[in-house]
Amino acid sequence: MAVETVAEFKMKTKKIAIIGASGYSGEVLVQLLLNHPQAELVAVTSRQNAGQTLAQVFPKFASHPKSRTLRFSEPNAELLAKQADVVFLALPHGVAAEYAVPLLNAGCVVIDLSADFRLKSAEIYKDFYAHDHPAPDLLKKSVYGLPEIYRDEIKQALLIASPGCYPTSILLPTIPLLKAGIIKPTGIIADSLSGVSGAGRKAEIDYLFCECNESVRPYGVPKHRHLSEIEEQLSFAAGIKVVMQFTPHLIPVNRGILTTLYLTPEKHFTNETEMRALNEKILECYAEAYAREPFVQLKAQPPDTKNVVGTNVCEIAWRLDSRTGRLIVMSAEDNLVKGASGQAVQSMNIVCGWPETAGLM
Amino acid sequence: MAVETVAEFKMKTKKIAIIGASGYSGEVLVQLLLNHPQAELVAVTSRQNAGQTLAQVFPKFASHPKSRTLRFSEPNAELLAKQADVVFLALPHGVAAEYAVPLLNAGCVVIDLSADFRLKSAEIYKDFYAHDHPAPDLLKKSVYGLPEIYRDEIKQALLIASPGCYPTSILLPTIPLLKAGIIKPTGIIADSLSGVSGAGRKAEIDYLFCECNESVRPYGVPKHRHLSEIEEQLSFAAGIKVVMQFTPHLIPVNRGILTTLYLTPEKHFTNETEMRALNEKILECYAEAYAREPFVQLKAQPPDTKNVVGTNVCEIAWRLDSRTGRLIVMSAEDNLVKGASGQAVQSMNIVCGWPETAGLM
Amino acid sequence: MAVETVAEFKMKTKKIAIIGASGYSGEVLVQLLLNHPQAELVAVTSRQNAGQTLAQVFPKFASHPKSRTLRFSEPNAELLAKQADVVFLALPHGVAAEYAVPLLNAGCVVIDLSADFRLKSAEIYKDFYAHDHPAPDLLKKSVYGLPEIYRDEIKQALLIASPGCYPTSILLPTIPLLKAGIIKPTGIIADSLSGVSGAGRKAEIDYLFCECNESVRPYGVPKHRHLSEIEEQLSFAAGIKVVMQFTPHLIPVNRGILTTLYLTPEKHFTNETEMRALNEKILECYAEAYAREPFVQLKAQPPDTKNVVGTNVCEIAWRLDSRTGRLIVMSAEDNLVKGASGQAVQSMNIVCGWPETAGLM
Amino acid sequence: MAVETVAEFKMKTKKIAIIGASGYSGEVLVQLLLNHPQAELVAVTSRQNAGQTLAQVFPKFASHPKSRTLRFSEPNAELLAKQADVVFLALPHGVAAEYAVPLLNAGCVVIDLSADFRLKSAEIYKDFYAHDHPAPDLLKKSVYGLPEIYRDEIKQALLIASPGCYPTSILLPTIPLLKAGIIKPTGIIADSLSGVSGAGRKAEIDYLFCECNESVRPYGVPKHRHLSEIEEQLSFAAGIKVVMQFTPHLIPVNRGILTTLYLTPEKHFTNETEMRALNEKILECYAEAYAREPFVQLKAQPPDTKNVVGTNVCEIAWRLDSRTGRLIVMSAEDNLVKGASGQAVQSMNIVCGWPETAGLM
Repeated sequence: MAVETVAEFKMKTKKIAIIGASGYSGEVLVQLLLNHPQAELVAVTSRQNAGQTLAQVFPKFASHPKSRTLRFSEPNAELLAKQADVVFLALPHGVAAEYAVPLLNAGCVVIDLSADFRLKSAEIYKDFYAHDHPAPDLLKKSVYGLPEIYRDEIKQALLIASPGCYPTSILLPTIPLLKAGIIKPTGIIADSLSGVSGAGRKAEIDYLFCECNESVRPYGVPKHRHLSEIEEQLSFAAGIKVVMQFTPHLIPVNRGILTTLYLTPEKHFTNETEMRALNEKILECYAEAYAREPFVQLKAQPPDTKNVVGTNVCEIAWRLDSRTGRLIVMSAEDNLVKGASGQAVQSMNIVCGWPETAGLM
Repeated sequence: MAVETVAEFKMKTKKIAIIGASGYSGEVLVQLLLNHPQAELVAVTSRQNAGQTLAQVFPKFASHPKSRTLRFSEPNAELLAKQADVVFLALPHGVAAEYAVPLLNAGCVVIDLSADFRLKSAEIYKDFYAHDHPAPDLLKKSVYGLPEIYRDEIKQALLIASPGCYPTSILLPTIPLLKAGIIKPTGIIADSLSGVSGAGRKAEIDYLFCECNESVRPYGVPKHRHLSEIEEQLSFAAGIKVVMQFTPHLIPVNRGILTTLYLTPEKHFTNETEMRALNEKILECYAEAYAREPFVQLKAQPPDTKNVVGTNVCEIAWRLDSRTGRLIVMSAEDNLVKGASGQAVQSMNIVCGWPETAGLM
Repeated sequence: MAVETVAEFKMKTKKIAIIGASGYSGEVLVQLLLNHPQAELVAVTSRQNAGQTLAQVFPKFASHPKSRTLRFSEPNAELLAKQADVVFLALPHGVAAEYAVPLLNAGCVVIDLSADFRLKSAEIYKDFYAHDHPAPDLLKKSVYGLPEIYRDEIKQALLIASPGCYPTSILLPTIPLLKAGIIKPTGIIADSLSGVSGAGRKAEIDYLFCECNESVRPYGVPKHRHLSEIEEQLSFAAGIKVVMQFTPHLIPVNRGILTTLYLTPEKHFTNETEMRALNEKILECYAEAYAREPFVQLKAQPPDTKNVVGTNVCEIAWRLDSRTGRLIVMSAEDNLVKGASGQAVQSMNIVCGWPETAGLM
Repeated sequence: MAVETVAEFKMKTKKIAIIGASGYSGEVLVQLLLNHPQAELVAVTSRQNAGQTLAQVFPKFASHPKSRTLRFSEPNAELLAKQADVVFLALPHGVAAEYAVPLLNAGCVVIDLSADFRLKSAEIYKDFYAHDHPAPDLLKKSVYGLPEIYRDEIKQALLIASPGCYPTSILLPTIPLLKAGIIKPTGIIADSLSGVSGAGRKAEIDYLFCECNESVRPYGVPKHRHLSEIEEQLSFAAGIKVVMQFTPHLIPVNRGILTTLYLTPEKHFTNETEMRALNEKILECYAEAYAREPFVQLKAQPPDTKNVVGTNVCEIAWRLDSRTGRLIVMSAEDNLVKGASGQAVQSMNIVCGWPETAGLM
């Protein structure tokens, strides 16, 4: 595929490929793209499933006509670059660079669902991932694919690093408050609960039904890898370096993330009147940030993951506590949709100049 | 039953009654008492099940011989006082006083599983429960039935207020640290996840299978009623009034509570050496408090509710975070056993002078 | 609304109302109609939710613009008849006639999701429901809304009785075999497993999370009410009266029905060659019946409810057993979609002259 | 250990070893033996866990004192024979013979939880397991460890083949009816639903949480390996060769099996009087077989697995269907207790001359 301008790129109908489509987020990506009004899914790759049709690997798509003709192939960047305009990478950590470089060189737009291009700082990468970044130059070019925050950058992007599921659930509620100076950038705590699909479709004892059902457990305490991108993005929003607390827990649901945030308002409130004034300010801040956003819902009641699973929506609710002076913000999303594949498709819609909700409502 | 001294009381074999035995904690209480080596269950009451045998109401006990002969009766304090030495109250909030007064007057030991006698302060009660306490005098006489903290008082108690499930999961990990001055009494946050049995066996839409399964949601934010007894107990431990943050969440498991505590050490640590020294101090503090306790387990790995469900054990693990300076403590328990009926039986064992683990291992 | 011919009816854009939209199948119906390309949802009724918006009652639809403007009203057949062309009844058993009669008189097409109009015989109705049918004349006019079997009749129907969830999972695999004379009409056994949403959104102890989770139980043995419509339809297919065995079980999933059918081939097979020949015949029979059907999938592997939940698809697979001479047929569907609201929308598409898959793929 | 007579063997306190204790049934076996009043657990083996304590491998036993001292060792039959009187084998299919032979030669009683010694016929073994039996002579010596049927033989046994979970749930309800000539030996159908622990603690994609949760699926249709022992035992009971239908399904619970049996009474009933007479006969048959059995419960209501999970009880209920002439029998058990380790301990109690319920109530 010849290189072209962003404007030219947007005028065409797009052909789409997915590299690494056999995991849980790959499966949701396939589902969204099969039903997308403007995207045409032309290739899916998977080493272990090469040769099989979509219907064989994902029986749930068997009623879609294309599922019987589209077959998984071996991943081959050169070949895919000739077939596709936009390529999604849904690969395990650490291997995206290998495909991204040739695809970008061939003029494809690349949307990566892994953590490989989410950081701007190669040092932070090394601190959290314990090895040098394989393509540090690309970190500068990549755009963090959180549309509600980086919509303008995504429009022009060639390499989009789609955010992680935990980061999305933390950043959407926190960034507007930090930017508006409503909360302190210190002392932030995020306590998150995730469904088991977040661990991927891996044959490990820890994720067997009998090990997860009737169980709940924290993990990755206190320095989970996702902290790196969360803190980097919060630091950009706050204008100073943010260090925060993050505790993920595994709960027995297939899909869904619930995050409870413990935040400290900049302005101390000591009576009911001050609390109401602050509450009004928070409401205005969120309304300005999200009232026109199709995929962020401000709620009066605490969110419930069952209301967002299967959708690209992130729900946000909050409470001020007059006893402790804290602001409690709660968010809910589907880790595989707004936390992964839905958000990636949202970015695709933006970069392709399509309606942002196409294929997502 | 004639009044007797505590010493006399302890020499006898005991007859036990349960008022309100048809809920989830009542059911576990029945199970523990049916299999207890020294206690003899002589009466169970339930308005809606009066006349039915234990086997009819709880098919799972049908293989126990007594389940076919022991029948539920209408609750009648006067009658029960003649039959039983120890009476458990497993009733909804607000009605325990009605039974406790006549039973205590008749010389029974009363172990109440509700929140009715857990507070020392009638004002705090009114603040959280929105009405005057029906028997404020009893608040002074009652002992908070957390054996690891109040063992000596329980030995002499006539009225034992068995702690709630959330309070147990928060107090056991926090009290020793507060008493030792290791953590600050300010800024404490408890983020708790509870199984659905915590809501009781009530026919409400919110607790239907389809409303809880594949769902997680916070509730009671920011001022859950259990905060009152948690803060009162923490204040006793700290020696000054403690106000804290508590966020309960409902998760789709039958049983189990997982609490993640965010605590601030009194002594700031700025390097690896200081962190290790502090960690050593925490380990010593916990070891002194719990190494000889049969029902508190200190763990190297984060706890998992599936390891404690069905047992009277509370697991505790912790991590110091050198990045944030915080101490993260995690606990797990079965909300119906150590968080309710098991702990009540543990208190019964103490007050009756039996081995504390009788019927609980 | 004035009466019109079926041809006239089909030319218009249609306005749709739902009476009784607050249960689980009502919720799915709302979801399907909100996203339907040709149907316009103009009214939803619910006594207990009257006055509330769709977004208030079903937070999961809050991102749909109409959910904030469309409000639940009290059910009023006369008023609805003026507003809507097609009216869905999603009511508990026994009250549909009250609304169907005035709506039909006013010229609306009525699609009833209850069992009230599914039988042709008023005697069978009385035998299974223990009271006289309130509007026996309508039984003759109503069409059993199983599109794969009654497509032509549905095109002309004014009153469509949409089949039950269990019946759909049993009839689709069985009717073609009976019509082709491949299986005997005697000795049929259907063993079915249903998710808890099948019991409806009712506040009953039996359907609490803790009563259903980690539990499986048969119920309605041996004469479940759904047997009446299953046997009546099988009798039509076989040409003689069919009496069969049906055992439903409740399993801890939200949605999904899995039915295992034990059938006896008309032609006994005694060796591998005969078995292969019979298998070929079954395959041909099913292929003729369903190869062009968008919502029936013939599978080589046993079905799994997780592959059909959220879709309008019924999966069918089978095995001949050379040891017992039996034919085992297994089917899977979503009880709320193909087993209820999806199928009702499929009938709406047919009666309105729209593409049968509109809003369902 | 020197060889001794059965009488001598029974007089001693017994030392117990488990070979292969790290799976789900191994875990339950450890739990039962740790709490057994007469058995002393002296050795547990596991290749992958050798060197670790019980508490490390099974955190849930950490409060038991022995869990901190007893360590897993490599399996070594010669060494174990010197340490233990009774050795349980909880190994995957096919490797039991390797250990059983030296242990038996050394005079140990061997209780095998695998399928390796359950059949009497080496030909049937080959038909179902597709290879020759490694020690066909032991098939003659082994006793099928279903205490309610083979109690006398178990008393004298040296090698006990403990039945599988599905077989137990099918044989207990069926054998008495066959022996009494109440049902025909032909046309028997068993439709079984099993919790996921039945698949073992194996790291396979099919048993991941997200693959099993919100899913139900049949498998092993139509010739599951367990059919071999079921049919052999039913043939012994009936006095003629029985061939039957068996369909297992995987449902999303940790533990529990629910079996629904479709049986044909020998005596046809054509009216209410005859049905009542037959029902009386069934009740008498079951009462004679099981009224004095501590671990079989006859129920008026259909069984529910949640009432038997964690117990060694098998619940049985039944219904005659006057419409079809069939007898429907339903059973429920815990697949890991009565279906595996509990039943094996029950056999140990018998062979050791201890009360049969020791450690099981």
